[in-house]
Amino acid sequence: MSQHRITVLHGPNLNLLGTREPEVYGHETLADIDQSLQTLGESLNAQVTCQQSNAEHELIDTVHSLRGQCDGLIINPAAFTHTSVAIRDAIAGVQVPFVEVHLSNIHQREPFRHHSYFSDLARAVICGMGSEGYRAALRYLVKHI
Amino acid sequence: MSQHRITVLHGPNLNLLGTREPEVYGHETLADIDQSLQTLGESLNAQVTCQQSNAEHELIDTVHSLRGQCDGLIINPAAFTHTSVAIRDAIAGVQVPFVEVHLSNIHQREPFRHHSYFSDLARAVICGMGSEGYRAALRYLVKHI
Amino acid sequence: MSQHRITVLHGPNLNLLGTREPEVYGHETLADIDQSLQTLGESLNAQVTCQQSNAEHELIDTVHSLRGQCDGLIINPAAFTHTSVAIRDAIAGVQVPFVEVHLSNIHQREPFRHHSYFSDLARAVICGMGSEGYRAALRYLVKHI
Amino acid sequence: MSQHRITVLHGPNLNLLGTREPEVYGHETLADIDQSLQTLGESLNAQVTCQQSNAEHELIDTVHSLRGQCDGLIINPAAFTHTSVAIRDAIAGVQVPFVEVHLSNIHQREPFRHHSYFSDLARAVICGMGSEGYRAALRYLVKHI
Amino acid sequence: MSQHRITVLHGPNLNLLGTREPEVYGHETLADIDQSLQTLGESLNAQVTCQQSNAEHELIDTVHSLRGQCDGLIINPAAFTHTSVAIRDAIAGVQVPFVEVHLSNIHQREPFRHHSYFSDLARAVICGMGSEGYRAALRYLVKHI
Amino acid sequence: MSQHRITVLHGPNLNLLGTREPEVYGHETLADIDQSLQTLGESLNAQVTCQQSNAEHELIDTVHSLRGQCDGLIINPAAFTHTSVAIRDAIAGVQVPFVEVHLSNIHQREPFRHHSYFSDLARAVICGMGSEGYRAALRYLVKHI
Amino acid sequence: MSQHRITVLHGPNLNLLGTREPEVYGHETLADIDQSLQTLGESLNAQVTCQQSNAEHELIDTVHSLRGQCDGLIINPAAFTHTSVAIRDAIAGVQVPFVEVHLSNIHQREPFRHHSYFSDLARAVICGMGSEGYRAALRYLVKHI
Amino acid sequence: MSQHRITVLHGPNLNLLGTREPEVYGHETLADIDQSLQTLGESLNAQVTCQQSNAEHELIDTVHSLRGQCDGLIINPAAFTHTSVAIRDAIAGVQVPFVEVHLSNIHQREPFRHHSYFSDLARAVICGMGSEGYRAALRYLVKHI
Amino acid sequence: MSQHRITVLHGPNLNLLGTREPEVYGHETLADIDQSLQTLGESLNAQVTCQQSNAEHELIDTVHSLRGQCDGLIINPAAFTHTSVAIRDAIAGVQVPFVEVHLSNIHQREPFRHHSYFSDLARAVICGMGSEGYRAALRYLVKHI
Amino acid sequence: MSQHRITVLHGPNLNLLGTREPEVYGHETLADIDQSLQTLGESLNAQVTCQQSNAEHELIDTVHSLRGQCDGLIINPAAFTHTSVAIRDAIAGVQVPFVEVHLSNIHQREPFRHHSYFSDLARAVICGMGSEGYRAALRYLVKHI
Amino acid sequence: MSQHRITVLHGPNLNLLGTREPEVYGHETLADIDQSLQTLGESLNAQVTCQQSNAEHELIDTVHSLRGQCDGLIINPAAFTHTSVAIRDAIAGVQVPFVEVHLSNIHQREPFRHHSYFSDLARAVICGMGSEGYRAALRYLVKHI
Amino acid sequence: MSQHRITVLHGPNLNLLGTREPEVYGHETLADIDQSLQTLGESLNAQVTCQQSNAEHELIDTVHSLRGQCDGLIINPAAFTHTSVAIRDAIAGVQVPFVEVHLSNIHQREPFRHHSYFSDLARAVICGMGSEGYRAALRYLVKHI
Repeated sequence: MSQHRITVLHGPNLNLLGTREPEVYGHETLADIDQSLQTLGESLNAQVTCQQSNAEHELIDTVHSLRGQCDGLIINPAAFTHTSVAIRDAIAGVQVPFVEVHLSNIHQREPFRHHSYFSDLARAVICGMGSEGYRAALRYLVKHI
Repeated sequence: MSQHRITVLHGPNLNLLGTREPEVYGHETLADIDQSLQTLGESLNAQVTCQQSNAEHELIDTVHSLRGQCDGLIINPAAFTHTSVAIRDAIAGVQVPFVEVHLSNIHQREPFRHHSYFSDLARAVICGMGSEGYRAALRYLVKHI
Repeated sequence: MSQHRITVLHGPNLNLLGTREPEVYGHETLADIDQSLQTLGESLNAQVTCQQSNAEHELIDTVHSLRGQCDGLIINPAAFTHTSVAIRDAIAGVQVPFVEVHLSNIHQREPFRHHSYFSDLARAVICGMGSEGYRAALRYLVKHI
Repeated sequence: MSQHRITVLHGPNLNLLGTREPEVYGHETLADIDQSLQTLGESLNAQVTCQQSNAEHELIDTVHSLRGQCDGLIINPAAFTHTSVAIRDAIAGVQVPFVEVHLSNIHQREPFRHHSYFSDLARAVICGMGSEGYRAALRYLVKHI
Repeated sequence: MSQHRITVLHGPNLNLLGTREPEVYGHETLADIDQSLQTLGESLNAQVTCQQSNAEHELIDTVHSLRGQCDGLIINPAAFTHTSVAIRDAIAGVQVPFVEVHLSNIHQREPFRHHSYFSDLARAVICGMGSEGYRAALRYLVKHI
Repeated sequence: MSQHRITVLHGPNLNLLGTREPEVYGHETLADIDQSLQTLGESLNAQVTCQQSNAEHELIDTVHSLRGQCDGLIINPAAFTHTSVAIRDAIAGVQVPFVEVHLSNIHQREPFRHHSYFSDLARAVICGMGSEGYRAALRYLVKHI
Repeated sequence: MSQHRITVLHGPNLNLLGTREPEVYGHETLADIDQSLQTLGESLNAQVTCQQSNAEHELIDTVHSLRGQCDGLIINPAAFTHTSVAIRDAIAGVQVPFVEVHLSNIHQREPFRHHSYFSDLARAVICGMGSEGYRAALRYLVKHI
Repeated sequence: MSQHRITVLHGPNLNLLGTREPEVYGHETLADIDQSLQTLGESLNAQVTCQQSNAEHELIDTVHSLRGQCDGLIINPAAFTHTSVAIRDAIAGVQVPFVEVHLSNIHQREPFRHHSYFSDLARAVICGMGSEGYRAALRYLVKHI
Repeated sequence: MSQHRITVLHGPNLNLLGTREPEVYGHETLADIDQSLQTLGESLNAQVTCQQSNAEHELIDTVHSLRGQCDGLIINPAAFTHTSVAIRDAIAGVQVPFVEVHLSNIHQREPFRHHSYFSDLARAVICGMGSEGYRAALRYLVKHI
Repeated sequence: MSQHRITVLHGPNLNLLGTREPEVYGHETLADIDQSLQTLGESLNAQVTCQQSNAEHELIDTVHSLRGQCDGLIINPAAFTHTSVAIRDAIAGVQVPFVEVHLSNIHQREPFRHHSYFSDLARAVICGMGSEGYRAALRYLVKHI
Repeated sequence: MSQHRITVLHGPNLNLLGTREPEVYGHETLADIDQSLQTLGESLNAQVTCQQSNAEHELIDTVHSLRGQCDGLIINPAAFTHTSVAIRDAIAGVQVPFVEVHLSNIHQREPFRHHSYFSDLARAVICGMGSEGYRAALRYLVKHI
Repeated sequence: MSQHRITVLHGPNLNLLGTREPEVYGHETLADIDQSLQTLGESLNAQVTCQQSNAEHELIDTVHSLRGQCDGLIINPAAFTHTSVAIRDAIAGVQVPFVEVHLSNIHQREPFRHHSYFSDLARAVICGMGSEGYRAALRYLVKHI
């Protein structure tokens, strides 16, 4: 059986992970998470590609490039969760099934973080499980696509 | 090492699972899900107890009984997600860490399903992954408690 | 031709009927209404079963039991009209066609009584006709199912 | 005993009935409905007069003419349900008891159709029963006036 | 090829055009606009019929008469844009494709002019182009019906 | 000095005056009020013309006819106060200074009567003074135009 | 016949009248207005007492002193219109019939001036007629108390 | 003089009292409070009956049983304060005067705890006085019924 | 043991008590209430000082003077409940524990009386118990400070 | 006569045109549209320059570069319509007259697409006409600048 | 060059400064602040007059007295920021340019402190800089008036 | 004593300063402002670094680079004030104390400019003082960090 191709996109400020507001986000770095996803991917016969950007247009361009090249997307849009109709439209345009992941429980934070432009398009939404959320998303996608 | 004690609570109408609105909830029955959780629990050295009720007071009474007898709770409050302050208060009273799970993606359904009385107290929230959501919650709880 | 099987469900406090706030609800008792529905049912070749409960879970359980056993439901959810997503979900789950009935004109009462969790699922909604409303619902259901 | 005098008023666009959006309103024409009401009226010793207009002022003028000439009104204000304070005032001015009827279940349609300028003045409100709603209203009015 | 039959409807107060609030609506009269549309229609092989009315019921009656007699409608509902569910229903009833036109940019005017009962049913909406908007609508309709 | 030309417009249902809901509107008829205004007009060297209509389009047409033929307008739009953008636009189009009058104190009535489409364009607004309000408006207009 | 006793209360900043924002309030001083009211009062056999204060408690104390000593009140609460529940309660406590007067048309000003804590208790409300509003109120009160 | 019959109803989760969230609710148990109320009742010649339930329907049934058997009700609806129209209706149905009591100051807690379905029907409302609130309610009821 | 020093502050219009709107506030005068509080205070070893003012600044000044001179405050802010951030700030500034008291049940009155600027700072809130509310507050404060 | 200089700006994801959600946007590519605009421009003696970007800052920079170099702007801000105050400010800063164009009828899509940060600054707004909308905008701009 | 005349107004409770809630407002007293402003004023050739009041009417009277006697106003309305239309009107009446100053960052405090009746009239608004804010305002006013 | 390191960030469109909408923003260029800040910085022993960008991601990257390299931040987020959660998160992540500055008084502009994603995190907020606001912020930061 051919490998599943899974892309993982991390939104703005996630490059600070492990250093920024650790009481909210924990001490793991983004490299740690990406490594754990690739390890898990191998065990599930999935090829996992990870990318982080602070730029909305770079995330849009990456999403565009997924068309026909990717079987499932895991996205943590971070701050763009609440503001970017453009990334939403990009994902809707390429029609890759995706899971939305948030490290922290956004329902415990400021009210403006309670609305997401992505959740109504997503297959599934996970929040509050830290980096475990990414891995749960990966297991789900590999199983259901 | 002693076993983790995990309780799984299913709210109203989930006893219909596998027969009711399968385009929303899938064909698995509740017994199937409970069986899969117990199997997974064994592999994780966790003792998993499952219960379903259509009665708010039974769910409250069960939650009360968890105090000191349970290390983690997985709850799918179903319709009570949106209406039961009483179950919320019960969980807050016994202070068991819990994960909120929904089979379907509640963000794709009626607006009154977008608010939960549980999410701001939960450690994590998972929706849209079908019964996979329960298992992801179980893995998370066993690892972090 | 086989008989239509019609269930009539009365929600909380309707057991007080004929005694409670008669300026709002009139002097007929619930037994009077049920009798009149059974009499009318006989003339329409319909078997009418009536039940009242103050407990949400009993109403849910009754609704569950209707699957395949009932051709039409008449429900006056009373106070649960405005609060019970769980009964709504139960009815959606068993997919019995139903008519929502209110004795009083809910539009003339407190604002919180103007929203119903049932109306958008109902075949029809009748309010303000007193017990006549149940009988109009019965005639409608027998004719259209 | 003298006959009850009942007026039936149909609001704008109802002259299209039987042709317009039949999936919403059914195939009966307005003439069919009026005929069925007159037939039913005869059996109930009621004289039924029916009128349709697309013009708000004609409906107002007709309502004015009812004072002292009519024992009960059945009105389907159609689109004017949601916009006409003037017809509301006309009915309040002549103080004829009335039942508000809608062919379709307005709670399943656009949000702006969920509010009515008539419901809080009406004796009763019926929606979603098709033309059966008019006949239920007629039976109710004859019995209670 | 047979001619396209296009109807143009102008709502209330547009008969004042060219004299009323020229800083908002310009100096062209309605007759000028209608003439320009007929000239353009000839060049596009379309038969253009224009009508203005200050009466909601006349507009409804005209819309009703279009069924099967008209291939496309251009409507400037003027003040009725914001208040007439009845004309909306009439157009939905006859199911003629239509373009909504406003002479001024309604987004620069009072907030109550920002909502239209017509836009979500329209094929297209044009505002702020003066009488040019009617001609753009005519070109569009002729091309796409 | 030439006479002031003052037009008085009465909206829908005001023809019922003196008979309809006298606890709200008093026992004077519309003819009584018009007579008192003409008498007062004579004493103030003003020519007073009065008109009532239940039809929005007739009121629009009358307003259009005022251009250049009228020095001041007194309007009681009645129910159209809260719904007619079209009459508002007509008055704005002919630019006659006007006073808005209501017989009853609209602030003591239903919430939907608290908003007027006319007040922000009016020179002055008077409510709750019964027919005295018309006469106060007449005195004001004659003095200030 | 004994004289009517009428009190006129002017709220905060009205002592600036004739100098402050004349494009909104005109050039008349408060003394001019009070003089005109006393002159008119004499012609109507009414004793008119006028008072202005910038202090909410002084206005409250004055209102308290009116009980049994005053037949009618004319009040221009100025800025307190929108903020003083205490003066509202004072007037409700002494139960003197009153007319609310505003010099300018408050509906043409900032949105926070559109709500009044007085209008639903007042016999009548007049705005936009300048000082003429006070005199219209005086004529009305003398006639109807 | 015959004894006053007073019923005290405690809503869901109050059985946890003395153990649950003591920083909010204090260390007294429900048995302690009930004992103190019975002691106080004896000194006031009142017979005090206390009951707690986590089940809405049990509270409704108890309320129904009070008709004609009880002179005053003290109710702490706990979480049902904010969600139970059914208990509200039950109390309205039996028409026993009642005082609503909350141990904590609900105005200092989550916004959804600021609205009560009981306050507008209650004789009095007390919150934030801990168990002292029940005793103040008891004194008040005995004195005023 | 030294005496508790308790201050009682009555807000605007409460000097009218016993005469103003007795159907809302009862027939007791403020002097009656103050006397009963002083009598009760003596029995509880508390020194009770009472003051009423219609002036917001006097209430602020009195609150300022309490710092270090007062062990507990009972305040009925009356109309200032809903409008005075300044008195709220004064109490927050001197940090005296206080109970908020209302004679009537404010939840049964106008909607603008449902919000209080004091409740979230208060130890406890009592409404609807008439003057009994002050005495319950006094008992509570003496016991808990 | 010198040529008009017209710039056409396409916002994010429009590079996908012709492939993305064709049921919403049609099959034409962006290159097709740009070509048709240049052809039309030539026939109107206008020089048309087209640009697309997924990056907000590139669109801002382009707008800045238009100052003094462009006679009219046609912009389809796509997703930025609803989120970019920055592009709005850029256009307001360079003060080029512009027409806002949307391919689809945004009033038929999600509610968050009903508000535009551009419409109140635009000369005209066109939606729902597909690529025809750009050409109508071009004709309008050439004629009116 | 003649001196600039600058008035500084401090609103209610600011006399407590240095003692009240120092974690919010710091330890400086009002006298300290006023002294620092006078010292700075001397260095800028400005005559600085400072006043504090807990009474709204005193602040109004002071503002009235500024007309023609003052070149710039610095006002910290404190609690009146959110409630006093009367002081707003007073400032608008005398038309002195002013800067609004708040010691704390009002955006970090209760939601009702986020709206100011002064900001839209002010030349500038400063919050969160402690007493430094007054001095920044003084430098700005001296430079720009 | 070592120098304070202060960074000044200017958001989108501020590069147009001195040319764009001078009636709102004045004639100073951004270079003028930066120069004045560096001059003032020297006199305060502070090293001032200034940067402008129209790109959100560049501002995020710059903020990230400040960690440990900067003692205080002055930011005028311009249009991003109202839309960028991502820059907000970046600042929260690096935890540099900052002052928010706006050249114009945003409270006098469009309602969407009244909310800021930065104010609740800022030490202080200044608006309406033109470039003087930056210098006041610089003096404040140097003094308090």
